[in-house]
Formats: sequence, C-alpha cells, structure tokens
Amino acid sequence: MGERWTLLVLREAFSGVRRFEDFVRALGCPRDILSARLRTLVDEGILRREPYREPGMRAREQYRLTEKGAELFPALLALLQWGDRWTADPVGPSVEVTHRDCGAPLTVTMGCGRGHGPLGLRDVLASPGPGARKVA
Amino acid sequence: MGERWTLLVLREAFSGVRRFEDFVRALGCPRDILSARLRTLVDEGILRREPYREPGMRAREQYRLTEKGAELFPALLALLQWGDRWTADPVGPSVEVTHRDCGAPLTVTMGCGRGHGPLGLRDVLASPGPGARKVA
Repeated sequence: MGERWTLLVLREAFSGVRRFEDFVRALGCPRDILSARLRTLVDEGILRREPYREPGMRAREQYRLTEKGAELFPALLALLQWGDRWTADPVGPSVEVTHRDCGAPLTVTMGCGRGHGPLGLRDVLASPGPGARKVA
Repeated sequence: MGERWTLLVLREAFSGVRRFEDFVRALGCPRDILSARLRTLVDEGILRREPYREPGMRAREQYRLTEKGAELFPALLALLQWGDRWTADPVGPSVEVTHRDCGAPLTVTMGCGRGHGPLGLRDVLASPGPGARKVA
C-alpha cells in the first residue's frame, strides 16, 4: 500500500501538524518518503507551502491544507472509520474525531438532496454520468 | 497514482459489474493491471470470487463485494464527489449516484452521535486516540 503514508500525512495535517519535523515525529516516517509524499500533495494542490521563521533561525517552510485539501476531510474520515472497523489496531483508533461543541464522535452518513437519510447501500442507484467512458 | 485503477474497479463493482470482461469493457483497463487489482482486492477481503457458469460454457469466476467492501461505499462516494468537484472531466461526472426512491443526488455529510449536523471542518476536533503511535 504505497498510498498508506499519504493518508497518514493527511490525517496529521487535519490534526493541525504543519512542520516537517512534526510530521516525522508524529508518524515515524522515513524522511525521504515523507519528503516525496509532501511534494506529491503540494503538486496535486492538496497542501501548499508557506514560509515561516522562528526567532534566530533561518526561514523554513510549513505545509498547510488548501481548500481542495480541506474538502477531502469527509472522504478521509470515512476511510479512517472504515479502517478502524475492519483493520484497526486492537488498542483502538489512532485518532478520535469529535464534534467540537458537544464532544460526541463524528459520523459520516449518506443522505440525498431532498433531505432523506441516513441512507444505506440498498437505497443507492449508481448509473453512468455524462463523463462516463464511451465504449463500443 | 497507482491506486487510481483500484478506485475505478471499486466504482464499477458498486455499479453492479461482476465479471472480468465487463470490468475490461467498462474501464478500458489493461488486462494484466485489472487482474492484479482484482487479486489485491480479493486478498484484502474487499471482493470475493464466486463461481458462475453460463449454459454451454466452462465455469468462470465473478467478483462480488464482501461486507467489508460494501462498507467502503461512503468513503468512495465522498472521494468520487471530491474528484468531480476538483479534478473532473469538464463533460460532467463519470457516475451519477442517486437515491433509489426519489432520484435526488446522494450527498455525504458529517454529523455527530448526538444528532447535530451537517457539520463542517470547523466543527471538528481531531485528537490522538488510544491506538496513536507513542512518541518520545
């Protein structure tokens, strides 16, 4: 799963991690892999580099989510929750995502544009859209 | 993006495609790549092989979503909708997912266990869970 580190980098970015050394510390990820994953995420427009300078130190760069990146959150949360359910560490989830106001765990649900929901897979109809690949 | 075909195979599986030749036809995917992706999805317990036989033909296998696979749907839908918004074919989405009963487009939303929602990124608090990597 070459994309596993990418998901973990994103998870940390959503938890507020911005600096290279903090990603290293949070993930225990090899530095060259982390560099490559961050570069890909910047190239894809999901993270952006932003300069910062601590007193007495040279200027460095940190990594922040773009709007495009921030909008990945529901997909990432659904994936993390699926992972917790099906492949998790028996100790428990690696990250707990809660509603800031009330502290209850966050849920990802499907609904429809007319307000029906929550919906399950049996309520869903998937059909080719206008951008579907045309086949002979 | 080596995982791109995997996502597309899953998209087709959720649209009801089960047979190797139908995946080839729907995706225009090279056969060796498709074989490898299907094998990985079976190894991960997301698809399962099921024998079938058409009249006068030899027995073959088709691919069906397991329960673990079916539960990926909200994550996949959120990713597809993100892709439609940020990286889509200008023609329109490749797949349209609607509520079977009323025909309205499906939406993925975040809520919380106490019924608040829909929630946005600013309503969310992410913190390390019991399975978080311990660091010095």
